[in-house]
Order: sequence, then structure tokens, then C-alpha cells
Amino acid sequence: MTSNLTNRSVILSNRPKGIPQAEHFAVQESPVPDLPDGCILVKTSYWSADPAQRGWANDAPNYLPPVEIGAAMRGFAVGEVVASRNPNYAEGDLVSGMLGWSRYAVSDGSNVDRKVTETDLSPSMSLGILGLNGVTAYFGLLEVCGAKEGDTVVVSTAAGAVGSAVGQIAKIKGCRTVGITSSAEKMALCTDKFGYDETINYREQDVAEAIRVACPDGVDCYFDNTCGPISDAVMTQLAHGARVAICGTAALSDWDPIPLGPRVHRQLLVARARMQGFIAFDYQARFPEAVAQLSEWVRSGKLSANEHVLEGAEAARDAIAMLYRGENTGKLLIRVD
Amino acid sequence: MTSNLTNRSVILSNRPKGIPQAEHFAVQESPVPDLPDGCILVKTSYWSADPAQRGWANDAPNYLPPVEIGAAMRGFAVGEVVASRNPNYAEGDLVSGMLGWSRYAVSDGSNVDRKVTETDLSPSMSLGILGLNGVTAYFGLLEVCGAKEGDTVVVSTAAGAVGSAVGQIAKIKGCRTVGITSSAEKMALCTDKFGYDETINYREQDVAEAIRVACPDGVDCYFDNTCGPISDAVMTQLAHGARVAICGTAALSDWDPIPLGPRVHRQLLVARARMQGFIAFDYQARFPEAVAQLSEWVRSGKLSANEHVLEGAEAARDAIAMLYRGENTGKLLIRVD
Repeated sequence: MTSNLTNRSVILSNRPKGIPQAEHFAVQESPVPDLPDGCILVKTSYWSADPAQRGWANDAPNYLPPVEIGAAMRGFAVGEVVASRNPNYAEGDLVSGMLGWSRYAVSDGSNVDRKVTETDLSPSMSLGILGLNGVTAYFGLLEVCGAKEGDTVVVSTAAGAVGSAVGQIAKIKGCRTVGITSSAEKMALCTDKFGYDETINYREQDVAEAIRVACPDGVDCYFDNTCGPISDAVMTQLAHGARVAICGTAALSDWDPIPLGPRVHRQLLVARARMQGFIAFDYQARFPEAVAQLSEWVRSGKLSANEHVLEGAEAARDAIAMLYRGENTGKLLIRVD
Repeated sequence: MTSNLTNRSVILSNRPKGIPQAEHFAVQESPVPDLPDGCILVKTSYWSADPAQRGWANDAPNYLPPVEIGAAMRGFAVGEVVASRNPNYAEGDLVSGMLGWSRYAVSDGSNVDRKVTETDLSPSMSLGILGLNGVTAYFGLLEVCGAKEGDTVVVSTAAGAVGSAVGQIAKIKGCRTVGITSSAEKMALCTDKFGYDETINYREQDVAEAIRVACPDGVDCYFDNTCGPISDAVMTQLAHGARVAICGTAALSDWDPIPLGPRVHRQLLVARARMQGFIAFDYQARFPEAVAQLSEWVRSGKLSANEHVLEGAEAARDAIAMLYRGENTGKLLIRVD
């Protein structure tokens, strides 16, 4: 029933060390196989490019095994069910999940995160503000950092897909927000669109000094998307009882061997502070709660997101590297309509 | 009423950078002043030497202001109330607290941690297993690490005053215990007296490899008394959801500038692990609960401590440096009877 269709995937063609570049990927066509019993065929419309894909493409310890050479790149996608041999899904259902960077994805449902039911909003949102980025911000800020009214919250990659959601949710919760970003354009975006109280340009300012001025009582919560020198600077300004959520390590391209940096132990001890690593999947059972809340904030205009959409599979090859070059101006997506 | 007494104190005579040595202290005699209203005069019998005193003697960010040059060294002591103008204390009461390294201490009660009521046990215990060391182990292990039955608990300075209490409390709670120490003699002590399941000599073994062998399912709780290379090795072996309590940083003699070490961010992220700094005073309101429980374990023979007693004020001058040289064979005390 589906064998006359041609699939088009972005495969990992060779193994990167560090940030995967365009040369590590290839676009490959292949026939769409017959649909096995229990499976659905999803015609994807948007693919997501995420910093986590760096880790998945590398052969280094990670929370998931590395993507195999020759396989479609692991990644999030949203699409419509165009054929179903699974009683839980009907043709026309919109689903999102780790469907991979393929035009047609065969799934037994195990890699479907959810049916997208907020059909009044763009399906692309299910890959960003209503997807992994949104729930990462939601649980990282509210559970891992335990942010509460009156806290001073510092966010790195403040204009990014996760960071901008963190900043906005923190404002909704009554926090003071300080965003660290990389250009005057992004600083304006942080202030005008994402409502940050203060913004810092790490390329032009002394971050530790700027944080000291922006946070005279210290940093209560630090949502760390970067690691590296930005993180080192924030760690010098922790308030008593500070909570640091380690969400990503985008500033460092290679973890083999483990890079050196200033030891955090004394700062954690003096501030009685906590650092904790997390990934959104740790909270997967609570995704519906988060998506419902995030959707409500989007509809009421309290929460918004920029999208940066690349066109077509070929453009996906450079997408992860583009993230790490900081060139995207919003959630980076590939449209494959 | 007290002015005919001569006091004898160990004062901080000049400012160390890093570990305070004998040359940074002097023994000084002075008259005991008349006792102000509301105060007590305590004749101390034991002084405590603690790693935290390094931080108090240095002029660097700490949870307490630095000890002033010329002042008696800040430190814990236990002694008998020999005169009281405070209705809360009677002559003959035994009190412990941060009374300082002085033969006679005048106190308004604010630096008295508690009256020592377990008079069936040696008063010296109130400075160790029933004092700051014991409550540090108790709250660090049970609250900060959240150790529970079945956890694998790794302890650095495993034979030390805090570490040996951590190891024993972990065993009482049904954990598997792995102690890291510095000599064959201390390894035997760990096994024979403190009940560790496994011991590692960091001076002779590859700690990361030894931990990997001793903890095949990874480290659930790490009670970090050292920072430095031992900590770096343990951090490579964290179990999913591991908790690291930062109690001390004895392996590093200087935090100005902040020393470099392998960045912990990726390990915290991959393991979904937590690192948290704490000091026992954070739990001061719950000290009575801890001391009651610890005393009960001491009486029932489940919990014991070695003491290493130096004689007289002059010996106190080298005591902190001795701790950092690892020469003490138990809780280091100075007897000033």
C-alpha cells in the first residue's frame, strides 16, 4: 500500500568528533517499505534541529546510543499519519516525536511523544515551544531550579529556543530575569519580545562583572545552556542556596578528553548551592501537563517563540553546525513540505 | 570575680594564604576580664582542629568572616561553666560550641551550640562524633546525599573524623560502602573498625578504575571531603541519579585563583546527577535530633570514632597543617587540662 512512495532522509554518512558539520550528512532516497502490522506511516512536515543531536551523532557516553553510520539522523519531527495499521492512530492524526530526519517515518508508536491536539496552533510549535524546547524550559526552570516568585533567574542562550522559553516562564512566575546572549540584535529581542529585565552580551561585556551589577543580591537560579566561560562567570555570582540546572554544554565542542575549567566545588560550598543535570525526558510522564500549560500561555499571548525555518532536506545537513555557530534567530526547523 | 585568672590562647598572629602553618599562630597569655552581666566563663578542656579552620584563617570568600589578626583562633571547644551571670547556665554545666582556642572563654551563650548532657560519654566526643563531625556526616549523608538502603556510597577521607562517621551511618542505613583513604593502615581501620565493604588507597591505586571495579553499578552517593583528583575520579563513575555532597575541599590548598579541574557538567547531565555544597550549620535547628541518634548508636556499639589527642596549647599551632598533611589517626583534638 505504500511501496510506490519514495522516501528522502538525511543520513549520518560519517562519524563526527565534536560538532557535526554538513560533510557528516548526506541526503539519501530509498523506497518506503510496506507497513508492518501495528505500525503507522507518518508524512513529516517539519524537522527539528537541536543541540542534543551533537551528542547523538558522536560516539561518546551519552544518555542514548550513538546514531549508526548510514542511518537516518535521529531527530524530532512532526507529521500527519497517512497510513495506519495501529488501532491507536487514525489517518489524519498529527503526531510528534523522535521520528528522525526522514520524509516518511514508519513508527510502531514507541517514538511518538504525543498526538498534537492544539490544532489551532501551527504544527511547527510542537517541535519548539510546545515540544522538547518548551518542556525542557518548563521542567528545568520549575522543577530542577525550583524557581519561585522573587528569584533572580539567569539564562544563557537567552534568545534561543529553550532560553527564550525559560525567560518568559520565569517572568510569568514573578521572577526577575537576566538573559545572556551574543549580539545587540538578540539583546533587543530578549528585551522586546521575551521580556527580560536585563540582558548581557557575552561577546562584548565582562560577564561576571555584568552579572554582579545586574544581580546585586546574587543569582538564585541559573539555567545553564552553555557550560564554558559564560557558566564560569555566572558561578562566581551565586546567591545563598542557588540552584543551577545543567541543560546543555553548547559552548564546548568536545568532551574527549574532558575539558578543564575552574572547579565549582568551593562556590557550591560557600553558597550552599546545587548543580543538577537533567533532560526533559526525565519528566516524560508529565509532558501533557506541561504542554497544556504552555499552550494556554501561548494562546493568551504570555509566551511566544521565534522560528527560523530552513527549506528542504539538503538544508538540514548544515543545521546542527549552524546552531553551534549561533546563526539561527529562533527555533531552528527544516520544512520538508 | 575572675580577674585573678590568666588566660592562655592560640592567636592568629599573621595571615596565611592557603593552609595555616604553625608559624601563623602564637600562644598568648592575657588576663581573664571581669565577667559581664549575661555571660558565662567556660574553662575549656578540649579544643577541636578542623579543616574548616583553613577557610576561617584565610582572607577569602567564606561562609564566615576571616579571623582577625591577633584574635584567638576560631574553633570548637568543650568545657565546664566555672562562673555564670546568665540564668540559662549554671556552674558545672558542660557546654560545647565555637568557644575559640582559649583556655578561658567568655560567652554570652550565642556561640554555645549546646549543653553536653550525655555525661556517660567522654566530653571530647562532643567535638567529634557527637559534635560537628557527627552532625556533618549525619545531615550530609542522609539529607544532602539522600542515602537510602541499597545505595552504593563512596566516601573520601574515609578514615577521618567525618568520613568514618559517614561510612558507619551508611552501613547502619543498609548501604554498600566504599572508602577512599591514604595508607594500608587506614584501609585496615576502615575495614576492621568502620565496616567499609571496600577500601581504596588513592596513593597506590588508579581511583577511577578501582571505583569502577568496586561499584559495578556506579556510585549512587559520593560524600566528597577532598575535591581534587580523587573527586575527579569518582565523578567518572556516577550512577544514574547520583547525588554528590560537597563537604570539604581538603585536597586543594589554595582557591585564589580558582584551580582548574575537569568540568563536571557533562557527567552531571549524562547521569542526571546532582552536586550540592553544604555545611552542618545549615541544619543547626535539628542538631538535637542528630546528637540523640548518634549518641544512641555510640552506646549500642554501632558507631565509634578514633581520637588523636595533642597535649597543650603549643601543639595547637601545627594542628591544622597536620590535618592537611594527613598525619592524624582520628579526630584531632588538643587537650588543655
